[in-house]
Amino acid sequence: MTLELSALAEVRAIDALIRDLPRRADQLNKPHEADAELVPLGPDTYLATTIDCVGDELTSGIYRDPFTAGWVLVMASLSDLAAVGAMPIGLVQALSLPPDPALAERIAAGVGGALTRCGAAMLGGDLNTARTPLLTACAIGLVHGRPVTRMGIQPGDQLWATGPLGSGSALATARLMGLPDALYPEAGYRPVARVAEGQRLRPHVRAMIDTSDGPVNALDHLARLNGVGLRIDFDVERLVEPGAIAAFKKAGLPLWPLLCGEHGEYELIVAAAPEAEAEVLAAAPDARRIALATADPGVVLLLPDGREVAYDASVIRNLSASTGGDWRAYVSEFQAYGVRLGLGT
Amino acid sequence: MTLELSALAEVRAIDALIRDLPRRADQLNKPHEADAELVPLGPDTYLATTIDCVGDELTSGIYRDPFTAGWVLVMASLSDLAAVGAMPIGLVQALSLPPDPALAERIAAGVGGALTRCGAAMLGGDLNTARTPLLTACAIGLVHGRPVTRMGIQPGDQLWATGPLGSGSALATARLMGLPDALYPEAGYRPVARVAEGQRLRPHVRAMIDTSDGPVNALDHLARLNGVGLRIDFDVERLVEPGAIAAFKKAGLPLWPLLCGEHGEYELIVAAAPEAEAEVLAAAPDARRIALATADPGVVLLLPDGREVAYDASVIRNLSASTGGDWRAYVSEFQAYGVRLGLGT
Repeated sequence: MTLELSALAEVRAIDALIRDLPRRADQLNKPHEADAELVPLGPDTYLATTIDCVGDELTSGIYRDPFTAGWVLVMASLSDLAAVGAMPIGLVQALSLPPDPALAERIAAGVGGALTRCGAAMLGGDLNTARTPLLTACAIGLVHGRPVTRMGIQPGDQLWATGPLGSGSALATARLMGLPDALYPEAGYRPVARVAEGQRLRPHVRAMIDTSDGPVNALDHLARLNGVGLRIDFDVERLVEPGAIAAFKKAGLPLWPLLCGEHGEYELIVAAAPEAEAEVLAAAPDARRIALATADPGVVLLLPDGREVAYDASVIRNLSASTGGDWRAYVSEFQAYGVRLGLGT
Repeated sequence: MTLELSALAEVRAIDALIRDLPRRADQLNKPHEADAELVPLGPDTYLATTIDCVGDELTSGIYRDPFTAGWVLVMASLSDLAAVGAMPIGLVQALSLPPDPALAERIAAGVGGALTRCGAAMLGGDLNTARTPLLTACAIGLVHGRPVTRMGIQPGDQLWATGPLGSGSALATARLMGLPDALYPEAGYRPVARVAEGQRLRPHVRAMIDTSDGPVNALDHLARLNGVGLRIDFDVERLVEPGAIAAFKKAGLPLWPLLCGEHGEYELIVAAAPEAEAEVLAAAPDARRIALATADPGVVLLLPDGREVAYDASVIRNLSASTGGDWRAYVSEFQAYGVRLGLGT
């Protein structure tokens, strides 16, 4: 089953929006092809830049603490730089906030904590008043040497995740299903962008993407962009963070959304030739193999019980658009897809 | 009368927000000191970056056509680059929009039109769903040589505006007072960032700022930052765009808000030594003298009838915060300040 990029509602909306916008002839990546935009500055230097928003997560209640929103705002931007192998120069932020000093302070604490954790700096920003909070950040970095994009995967490549997965989808699932915070505490969700790993991995990998939209969705995106198939080793116990598994088991929830959900954990997923395995593990010691690229298009989940399940991530990835902000419908249709595939009740 | 930066509610809010954020030791400008953030990339090259939002203008009804919002989004960002003398590399945009394809298309047309007008490119972006539209753009550029900031004005310097002023405040005033579009058509408000002029002016001027917050407010900001006084040649007929004057006269409105309002026209204001006059006029042929810097702090308006009026722009600049989004109160208190100063009824 060939998976087309245009099957995704978000991709179609973006393509319609940018259709007539002037672009640079020398930009390294086309739309959708890289986590950060890449422009040559000199013979061996590229500017990398990316822009991201955090807002829905606060209004939908996935984040209750504005600190988390500030933290993720920074990490999402730095993670996009990491996924092209860039070294950060700094960030600028645009905060649109209700007139509430305590809210602003808590967001700023999250922003500051994340910057400090990654040794990054805030260069400046813009502050506006709005009814609901919307945080935007733009990160800027440099790549010395050949940048890595999402493109370039070849059949036979191995795909790796740089660390344990599932924390983002654990938090989002728990919240959207109305489970208590104690089951999977928000304060434990403090993802750290793999900035150093991205720079170390860059010379050894063929493609990179971050898991900001969830790990399986990231793999699905790579498959669509590269026209390859991916056989995903769908071993939740080996790939997912133990705390998330324990919480889901305690709540009696199926585990597959931990990998297939749309809220990420800001790990990197890289594709590398099999002979680069030692270099990948040296650059990212937490890395775990997650998939194998094949010439036969389509995404297949290899379950631990030996079953092979053809998986179309567009079902989940189009749910936000098709349910139009109705979170109950979203959760219900999400679960139904897993039942249909036999991924657990 | 010494004017302090901290008298501005917006400055205090920003300072509280960024107090504990890590910054780069090598950043050229401190907070508030430049229209774009400046970081050295090499011995003679600086990265310039800026982030700006357009949202209020749509929800408050100052812009009725989303095309204007898209256009201004781009021009506001390019104007900030212009005001440090940078050459644009490109922009990234984050659009948070209600699910309305016609709205998105009209915004994109404005974005595309403005980019094309300035020969600039869109590098990439982010698209999100929101109840009310909020557009954010980040522009990135390079300065080869010494960048110009808002700092460095000396008593005796002349201040120049790069072109006719008042179109932004004409539109905003007409809208907030509920006047018909025909009086001052929105389609006529298509400001063009002075990108080429900024680069040409850079070697010849001591300080630069754009008029995104209105020309007199820009001058006020320079006075506060540099600890100088400014004697403003408050000759509306010479400084303001004729169409705006005609519209205001027809509506029986006082003319002073055309220069003192908070909505700008994206011209540059530069400070230069008197002996640089020829270079300023060569770099910006539309330039007109607007003020003289003095050692005696405070902003004074020199009226054509010979009166000298001490002007505290913080009264207007704090109105948004003090009236909390109540536009009627804003307009009423705005007008009252002019009456108090004898600036016309």
